Formats: sequence, C-alpha cells, structure tokens
Amino acid sequence: VVGDDAAVLTLQPERSLVVTSDVLVDGVHFSDRTTSPEDAGWRAAAANLSDLAAMGASPLGITVGLSLPGHVTVAWVEQLYQGLVACLEPTGAVIVGGDICRSSVTTIAITAFGQVQPDRVIRRSTAQPRDAILVTGVHGASRAGLELLLHPELGQNLTEQARNSLVKAHQRPKPRLDVLPVLTSLGKKDESNAAASFSISGMDSSDGLADAVVQICRASQVGARLERSHIPYPVDFRSWLSPQQAIDWALYGGEDFELVLCMPVHLAELMVEELGQGAAIVGEITTENQVLLTDETGQFADEVLSLDRGFQHF
Amino acid sequence: VVGDDAAVLTLQPERSLVVTSDVLVDGVHFSDRTTSPEDAGWRAAAANLSDLAAMGASPLGITVGLSLPGHVTVAWVEQLYQGLVACLEPTGAVIVGGDICRSSVTTIAITAFGQVQPDRVIRRSTAQPRDAILVTGVHGASRAGLELLLHPELGQNLTEQARNSLVKAHQRPKPRLDVLPVLTSLGKKDESNAAASFSISGMDSSDGLADAVVQICRASQVGARLERSHIPYPVDFRSWLSPQQAIDWALYGGEDFELVLCMPVHLAELMVEELGQGAAIVGEITTENQVLLTDETGQFADEVLSLDRGFQHF
Repeated sequence: VVGDDAAVLTLQPERSLVVTSDVLVDGVHFSDRTTSPEDAGWRAAAANLSDLAAMGASPLGITVGLSLPGHVTVAWVEQLYQGLVACLEPTGAVIVGGDICRSSVTTIAITAFGQVQPDRVIRRSTAQPRDAILVTGVHGASRAGLELLLHPELGQNLTEQARNSLVKAHQRPKPRLDVLPVLTSLGKKDESNAAASFSISGMDSSDGLADAVVQICRASQVGARLERSHIPYPVDFRSWLSPQQAIDWALYGGEDFELVLCMPVHLAELMVEELGQGAAIVGEITTENQVLLTDETGQFADEVLSLDRGFQHF
Repeated sequence: VVGDDAAVLTLQPERSLVVTSDVLVDGVHFSDRTTSPEDAGWRAAAANLSDLAAMGASPLGITVGLSLPGHVTVAWVEQLYQGLVACLEPTGAVIVGGDICRSSVTTIAITAFGQVQPDRVIRRSTAQPRDAILVTGVHGASRAGLELLLHPELGQNLTEQARNSLVKAHQRPKPRLDVLPVLTSLGKKDESNAAASFSISGMDSSDGLADAVVQICRASQVGARLERSHIPYPVDFRSWLSPQQAIDWALYGGEDFELVLCMPVHLAELMVEELGQGAAIVGEITTENQVLLTDETGQFADEVLSLDRGFQHF
C-alpha cells in the first residue's frame, strides 16, 4: 500500500457537500440466514446512496470501515466489496478509503458523500399544507422478500417470477438516484414557478412509508392524510395477502429505499407521469396535527398513524 | 430527532475534498485500563484530524459510527462525545452525523472531511533526493506515556510534571493542524521558488517515525538517511532511558501524531525556526534503495531500517 493518509476528491463548482453514515452489525442489520456477503454489501451501499438521494445529492464516494472476527474469510470480504461496488458502479460513486480491523463481531460502517446545488437540497422540514405526497415506487416488496427468505413455505400461490422479484427487492434494493434528474428537469419546465424557491421536501422510506410521512410532518410541523387505496404495493400481494396485511407491509415494512416527496400537486402529477413504475400520489399535507389514513372506498375506518408501529429490524 | 437523512457542508471555492476514515475497537485501539471515554474520543478525533493535516487539509467535520454493547452506559457515550468535541473544537471542525447501533463489542468508526487547495495537497509519493526530512516535534512521548500507564512502577526518577506530560502526550495528542498556515506563509515568503510547484511531501507519524520515513521512501521510490543524534525525543528520556531505548521509542513508538515532511533544505530550516518545540531536520532523502540510520557521533554502527519493527497496537 503506497496510498496517502486520505483521498482527495473534487466537487463541481458551487456544490455543497452532503455526508451521511450508517453502521450495520451482523445479526442485526444483516444475517447469513438471509443475506449473502454480496447482498450485505449491496444493501449497505444502497442504504447510504438512498440517504443521499433523499437529500437531492449525487453520490461521489463512500468510505468503508470494517470490523471483522478472525474467522471471517478473505473470500467473504471480497464478496462484500463486490456487492458494494456493484451497487455503486452505475451511480459513478467509488470507494475512496476505509479501514479494516479485528473485532469479535462483523460490523460495516459506511460514510457516503455526495454533492448538491445548495438551493436544491431536499429537506424534511419544508413540507407545506396542500403539498401532494408522492412516493417514487411500490412499498412492501422488501418486507415481503424478507418474509419469503425467512419462511419459504409462505406464498405458495406466487409464481416463481413474482417470488424472485420480491426476494430481489429485499436483497438488491435500488436507491432512487434516477429521480434527481427528473426533479431538475421538471423544475425547469415548471414555468409558472420559475422565480419561486425550490419547493420539494421529503426523505427516503428506508424505515417505512408511514415512518417517512410522520417524520416529515414532525419536522415541518404539519399533518397529512394518506389515502389507503392510493398506496402502491406489488400486484402479487393481491393473490397472496389480505388487504390489511398488504397495506401493513406497504406502510410499515421498511427498506424499500423509495423517496417520499412533498411538492405542489401539479409538479407531483408531472413526476408520476415521468416516473411510472408504481410512482403515485398517496395523499396530501394538511394543517392538522396528525397523520390520518383514510379510505375513500369506505371499507376501513379512518386511522391515526403513529411511529409506534414503525419498522423494526428483524 | 427532526434531522435530515444527511448533513450539508459548504467548502470554500476551489478547494478539493479530502476524506479519511478509521475504525477503533475496544481492547485493540483503546482499553479501559489506559483510556477514559473522554480520552478515547479525543484520540479517535486526533487520529483522523492528523490524517487530514498530513494531506495539507483543513478539517470540516467528522461522522461517528458507534457500535455499543448493551452494558455501555449513556454516561460513557456522553464522555466519548465530550472527548471528540474537545479535540475538534479548536480546529473548527464539527460532528456532522453518525449512527449508533447495538453490537457485542464497542467500535468507533470515524470518517473525517477536510478541504485543501488542489495544488497544496501533501502526498507521500513526491519526495525528492536532497530534500530535508523534517519532523514537527518530539517523538516517543506517546509510547512513554502508555508504558507509564501500563506499568506505573516505571520511571521512578521522573518528576511528577514530566510523568504527567508524557501521559498527556499519550492521552491527548494534538494533531498538527497548526503547521499548515506556517507551510502556506513560508511558501509565500519563499520568493526564489515563487513559480515552482508545491514541493512538500510527507505523512503523519501515527504509526511511528521510522514507519513514516519508510512509507514515504516506498511511495516516492527514493531512500533516506536519518541521523540518530538529530531525532528529537522528550528531554526526560535522558534521565530515564538508555540512548538505545530512547531512540527505539522515538523511531517505533507511534501515535505521536506529528508530521514527517520532506522539502528543500532552505524551507525546512525556516520551518524549524518557525515551529520550535522539538521540530527538527532529522535526515535527508537520498537516491539509495534503503533507509539508513546513521550516527555522526560514531557510537552506533549504521543500521538499515525496515518496517518489520513498526508500531504494534498494545
């Protein structure tokens, strides 16, 4: 190793640096039961890239701090890095450094950094009443995939393809960095709003869609209404799960790494058109003091969401 | 917590981003026997800030990823953060984010960010034959402090003040960020070299002075001569240690977090004048294929240094 003490990176002119970090522990955030080392690496990178996407930032790179017990093989570490690189590569991000040391439990500490135009930062705290709440894709798939891995006897009437697709949603979630250029180009097209300041707030749904909406409402001191029938979950849930179970996984499942964005309705409608693939307006920001789950079909009573039912790691 | 998914930082115009990271594990890099939580925090921050200083970069901030067993108290974590902040504060750097999770062993993963003018990056690989090798301060103090903590029966003829100063060198090492403005101002004064490119290479001595010189020589494909009688160690070593023991700790002790810099002799002489406090020219870069330890007093035979005797964590 003839490297320097640190890596040097160049940002584009007039960009701010965005930094996020995560620690993943064997048996808590990943497990040999459900996760190959490649998948553990992919998911670790995806979680951090998703945090960058949630801030509106394009990724530059990550650092990887590994703590490893003596029994871990070099092959395991190589596979972990292969998974990290496989997730990073399409985004242009690179591993810029790290550290490996001995410990009694495998721990993966990742810090990711990206760049963003300062006036394009997406924050949780700027949601406005009457904003539409947009999700960039279906929810509940990662949770369903995990259940299928832990309990292969479940979902007997799912096709092989449906099963694989759900398992893959858990093992190889895609951070929604592809949404950022769409936001930028729609912002430019949105002539009625040309002079106005950036009006998009949000976060990612890594801890669940319900959690994201509650967090945004807390940070912005607003309320929200979510319409049950508009929340997109995988079509295969219909032949497998009860409507209540399906909506539970969609709201509380977690780790779908989609974005939950609040913006004026006309922008949200343009976004849904551009994104397709399960992107949907699922509700609106209100002046109320709560997050309400409504049902326009009248089948279910209104329900107040709280964080108490939020995502728990397996 | 109403924070965002990531922190946003602003670099000065036309600065590159410098990133470094470290993982510290309980029982390997710190231990309750010798390190309070405040000191563990201080040392973790110092190690990363020293890596930034070694690249010529001013610190912006750090992220902290903590893995903690269930028995660790909130007080311990607070004290760790107090130590981190105490080390960061005078440098203007801040904790910009992090993650805490449960594990069976305490692990501290830190990633530090700094900024540097792209043409002022200090690298290991650009040392030139005839460069002077400068150290920014005494070496061996941290190792001596550790020995005094582990074996309080040692150094009976040291004054209380000397003992405390060595222990403090181990517990609260100061990253040499103060050296950077001196480098910049000397570079400006150095009119003879006004048009030439930046001519300073180096790294920090966290793994020992000998290790730093060997690493720089490897990276630059040069050799070096170090003069035994010029290597600065704490004055109190004279009444405590044999000359051989003193030089061993100075060369191989590690964790002094000084800078080892290679530069033209006239610049190095100006630096020593400015820095004082044990800063010294300890040798020169050569075209040879080895790092030679010479003794101009003729007491010791010439010795070839290799990395084999480098720093080992306790």
